[in-house]
Amino acid sequence: MKKIPVIIDCDPGIDDVMALLLAFSRDDLDVKLITTEPGNQTQDKTIYNAIAFTSYMKQNIEIARGLNDPFFRELEVADKVHGESGLGEVILPEPTLLESDRTAINALKEVLTESEEPIVIIATGPLTNIGALLLAHPEVKEKISYISYMGGAAVAGNMSPFAEFNVYVDPHAADIVFRSGVPIVMSGLDVTHKAYVNMAELEKIESMNTDLSEKIGSMLRFYINTAKNNDFQDTDFENGIRLHDLCAVSYVVTPDLFEGEDCFVAVETEGRHTAGATVVDYAYRSGKPHNVKVLHSVDREAFVNQFMEAIEKMSNYIGQ
Amino acid sequence: MKKIPVIIDCDPGIDDVMALLLAFSRDDLDVKLITTEPGNQTQDKTIYNAIAFTSYMKQNIEIARGLNDPFFRELEVADKVHGESGLGEVILPEPTLLESDRTAINALKEVLTESEEPIVIIATGPLTNIGALLLAHPEVKEKISYISYMGGAAVAGNMSPFAEFNVYVDPHAADIVFRSGVPIVMSGLDVTHKAYVNMAELEKIESMNTDLSEKIGSMLRFYINTAKNNDFQDTDFENGIRLHDLCAVSYVVTPDLFEGEDCFVAVETEGRHTAGATVVDYAYRSGKPHNVKVLHSVDREAFVNQFMEAIEKMSNYIGQ
Amino acid sequence: MKKIPVIIDCDPGIDDVMALLLAFSRDDLDVKLITTEPGNQTQDKTIYNAIAFTSYMKQNIEIARGLNDPFFRELEVADKVHGESGLGEVILPEPTLLESDRTAINALKEVLTESEEPIVIIATGPLTNIGALLLAHPEVKEKISYISYMGGAAVAGNMSPFAEFNVYVDPHAADIVFRSGVPIVMSGLDVTHKAYVNMAELEKIESMNTDLSEKIGSMLRFYINTAKNNDFQDTDFENGIRLHDLCAVSYVVTPDLFEGEDCFVAVETEGRHTAGATVVDYAYRSGKPHNVKVLHSVDREAFVNQFMEAIEKMSNYIGQ
Amino acid sequence: MKKIPVIIDCDPGIDDVMALLLAFSRDDLDVKLITTEPGNQTQDKTIYNAIAFTSYMKQNIEIARGLNDPFFRELEVADKVHGESGLGEVILPEPTLLESDRTAINALKEVLTESEEPIVIIATGPLTNIGALLLAHPEVKEKISYISYMGGAAVAGNMSPFAEFNVYVDPHAADIVFRSGVPIVMSGLDVTHKAYVNMAELEKIESMNTDLSEKIGSMLRFYINTAKNNDFQDTDFENGIRLHDLCAVSYVVTPDLFEGEDCFVAVETEGRHTAGATVVDYAYRSGKPHNVKVLHSVDREAFVNQFMEAIEKMSNYIGQ
Ligand SMILES: [Ca+2]
Ligand SMILES: [Ca+2]
Ligand SMILES: [Ca+2]
Ligand SMILES: [Ca+2]
Repeated sequence: MKKIPVIIDCDPGIDDVMALLLAFSRDDLDVKLITTEPGNQTQDKTIYNAIAFTSYMKQNIEIARGLNDPFFRELEVADKVHGESGLGEVILPEPTLLESDRTAINALKEVLTESEEPIVIIATGPLTNIGALLLAHPEVKEKISYISYMGGAAVAGNMSPFAEFNVYVDPHAADIVFRSGVPIVMSGLDVTHKAYVNMAELEKIESMNTDLSEKIGSMLRFYINTAKNNDFQDTDFENGIRLHDLCAVSYVVTPDLFEGEDCFVAVETEGRHTAGATVVDYAYRSGKPHNVKVLHSVDREAFVNQFMEAIEKMSNYIGQ
Repeated sequence: MKKIPVIIDCDPGIDDVMALLLAFSRDDLDVKLITTEPGNQTQDKTIYNAIAFTSYMKQNIEIARGLNDPFFRELEVADKVHGESGLGEVILPEPTLLESDRTAINALKEVLTESEEPIVIIATGPLTNIGALLLAHPEVKEKISYISYMGGAAVAGNMSPFAEFNVYVDPHAADIVFRSGVPIVMSGLDVTHKAYVNMAELEKIESMNTDLSEKIGSMLRFYINTAKNNDFQDTDFENGIRLHDLCAVSYVVTPDLFEGEDCFVAVETEGRHTAGATVVDYAYRSGKPHNVKVLHSVDREAFVNQFMEAIEKMSNYIGQ
Repeated sequence: MKKIPVIIDCDPGIDDVMALLLAFSRDDLDVKLITTEPGNQTQDKTIYNAIAFTSYMKQNIEIARGLNDPFFRELEVADKVHGESGLGEVILPEPTLLESDRTAINALKEVLTESEEPIVIIATGPLTNIGALLLAHPEVKEKISYISYMGGAAVAGNMSPFAEFNVYVDPHAADIVFRSGVPIVMSGLDVTHKAYVNMAELEKIESMNTDLSEKIGSMLRFYINTAKNNDFQDTDFENGIRLHDLCAVSYVVTPDLFEGEDCFVAVETEGRHTAGATVVDYAYRSGKPHNVKVLHSVDREAFVNQFMEAIEKMSNYIGQ
Repeated sequence: MKKIPVIIDCDPGIDDVMALLLAFSRDDLDVKLITTEPGNQTQDKTIYNAIAFTSYMKQNIEIARGLNDPFFRELEVADKVHGESGLGEVILPEPTLLESDRTAINALKEVLTESEEPIVIIATGPLTNIGALLLAHPEVKEKISYISYMGGAAVAGNMSPFAEFNVYVDPHAADIVFRSGVPIVMSGLDVTHKAYVNMAELEKIESMNTDLSEKIGSMLRFYINTAKNNDFQDTDFENGIRLHDLCAVSYVVTPDLFEGEDCFVAVETEGRHTAGATVVDYAYRSGKPHNVKVLHSVDREAFVNQFMEAIEKMSNYIGQ
């Protein structure tokens, strides 16, 4: 079977490691590189988490350290959502993998340049690395098939009324990426708020009774209640735990689970109350060419099944 | 019966004249002054429309000319929505009323100052006059009961993805008003998109067969299709024609038809893509004191009945 | 002799009271109203200082309380330059005048409206009152001969590298005034840095040995060293004490002491490092119509003599 | 003799080629790489000019193509100052050198990384390449001795009252560089306006009567009158032709010809009227650590002699 070559740029982060888990479980994906962002936690912590989780998953993949800081803004981490370590209260085994001796930007540039076929970039953190790459090395664009991005929101943010966390952290980098001409599939809060695991499903995961399922369960329980419903948004959460970053991986392997629309999307880099907003022209008023496929719906049950299969498969694979 | 004293600041505008119609029809309202804004059309046209419609309604109310331009931005009118005259294709009879010889700001200041009881300001246009009043004459605040404002949006704009027209036209004036300490009830697009007349109801209005109902029908048909549903917002419009400005009047007389929440709302005055957004902190993340009651629901059928009763009553009153 | 009718809007402030002193001393000026700004100190303190100094000068002039806060920015006072009271360490006698029962905006509007001839506004503080007046009551513009303004700078600020204090405090109000169409004569730092009293002259003032000259001397000594020379600006200060606000009065009575150029001037209301800058297009690149006469030179000796004569005359007048 | 290793990043541009000329003439410099910016003209034209002039100078130096566009702003070229080609009316011989097959960013990164000693970067255009390099590859900072930059201004711009052209073109790139921690020596307009050739000197150059001196003379005459004196700046230009970019080279070889001050300098990236300003805290009010040595004086005669010697020497070298 022809595998889809991907690079994963992430800031683990609870849902980032679940996205990695799904990617590792898939025979139809070839993960060629992992690069890490500051975001949910600092660069030191996100690269540690990426290395530790990938080691735990018994994968042999290069993991390269990204930039330390957003382009212009001060870094704000999401420790209230992801905990001090970035992975809630889970302790992963001592990692066996080592950090790459290439920087993330160098590794991205070289892996893309040397690839004979275009690669999909799955990005589940702020876009600092990818933005810097596209700004400094626009010649690699032709080697990027598309960017499957978890970030942004068409109608309601989570950091501020309009801004989603990943874009909020580094709106200038996101602006570079969104204006780059590289095709983008945006799994924003519009779809990720519908991509949740409910309590019955959480219990089913926990009942798998493996070391991995136990860690996943622990992280999901840590994660509960970081988002809430309100009267301005109609989505019904049924006490659900949203798996934001997982969408960006799931879309690559099973795009048919998702629905979306091609839109023009701009990133607000300024504004006293709105910096970091993805301004999605879903009413088609701007007349500007569509640069982003904005996802808004997901087949939630199929999505959750896919996740549970991944946990089972990887539990077996790592023998725990 | 004790009447509620109100001042109406408006930019007629199709839905503005329907708001005036409702206000004129109510025995429980005492309209002490009308002031006009540039917005849907220029100041010259909105004051003409206000005078002509109030004359047509056989009301004897002072109508005072407001400012010509927003605080800092260039005026952008909504001629595509409201037509060249501001009232679609309707021709009103020659007005009998004359423009006040007081400016809107002077009239507002003096009417408020001289009033023994606090007055409700109903504002259905940009807030240029009200913003200038509160900025230059903060001493009148104590005479304002509250401002019933049609403008803004919690989750989706109509001028840009985040900005509603009235706030977009003069965000700085709106910022002054929203930070003024005067209580605000905001009928934003969240509720006004639910405050529509459907096609069956439109036909029922037309079948009243009066000169007024005919003019209302003509304006509503002109108005159709200026807003559309989309996949990011769940509201079902049933080919509805939204009566935005009417909400601001209806709330004053029948607040029980509406539901809303007290929130902190900031106005974005800057931003390359977001200027004019009302940033509604409906998730209560800012911790700032609530300054606005943001309406999100309306008993649509009761609201439409109220409107139809107003048309009938005023048709009888003017004898046409 | 025909007197020039003036209104003085000020934020006393050490140099503001010297500007008042000069105005009171002139037989060719008719001071019809004094209004106070927050700026060098809070509104409570600046109006107290205006009332106390005007009482001390035995003038009977209406003094009206202005707004408390800049349009959009938080008030920043200059207590490091003007002291806790706003007048250094000088204690003025108990005032005999009372605060007007009109607000500054109402008094400005009514005095201008009722005047048969145009009035010069001398403004020596932030432009919050004047900006609010022109925004809310543009009909008074025709009664303003011109605004003689101390504020701004063409080539170097004192609050930040580009921004002068008065404009920095309320750039939005300044923007309204500069775009108003009312002629402006700007005594910015370009000229006021050349309008200084040197140490020999200070000693000469002190040697007058009156109660007034003693108070003036005390304030000037308090004031020393709040500005310094540097290698990027060639002006030689000779240990001079700059009498910024005095220029705005002096220009009205003796314009021939000053030289300047007609320029287009814009006010920067935004900018992370430049808010409050007056952007003077002295190289005539913008092609925009000239809205400001920007002063750059003063006959310093004549200017200082004029000041000393004022001290002498008023010392005699108040009998101290 | 130990040579100073340098990289020249430029946007030729009339004064850029004179800066190259000076660099090529110096036995104490080792030019390891030339990279080109869009600025005075488009990337296609500036790299052509760099290649053609370096070929004409019979130098064998790698010349690598930089980025096409500023980080966020639209490119504005200076064709009115430098002409359609970027070099006035001078036609250079067909170039013998070829464009490098490395991108500017790759060449910069690799030359710096492979160098055993730190290299001086001489930058005489917008900082797009250098900003992208430092953003994406901060690990090279330790290999940069310092950046000798022509750009910015402490007290008066040339694109707008506060902004100098090079910074104006790409303020975000400049902001990255100025905040990078790499030492910067800034030859802003404060010093470059004093680094001029007067008419007698121009005639002396022309009287050298070589092909090179003739081309230099032609470009200088093209260049006359692009800046003018005014009453707000005291510099006396004596009909001088300013050799802005030359300062950045001259400082590297003869720093004693220049005087300056260590200051904190911020770059204004926003602002409606001030974007692109270098905000030089020459009055030391910010208390922030000094990041830039800002030059303000030059020994003009020695500077011009150095330039004339360079013309003579290179005329001989190229045998024309
Ligand atoms: Ca993430
Ligand atoms: Ca309206
Ligand atoms: Ca003052
Ligand atoms: Ca250059």
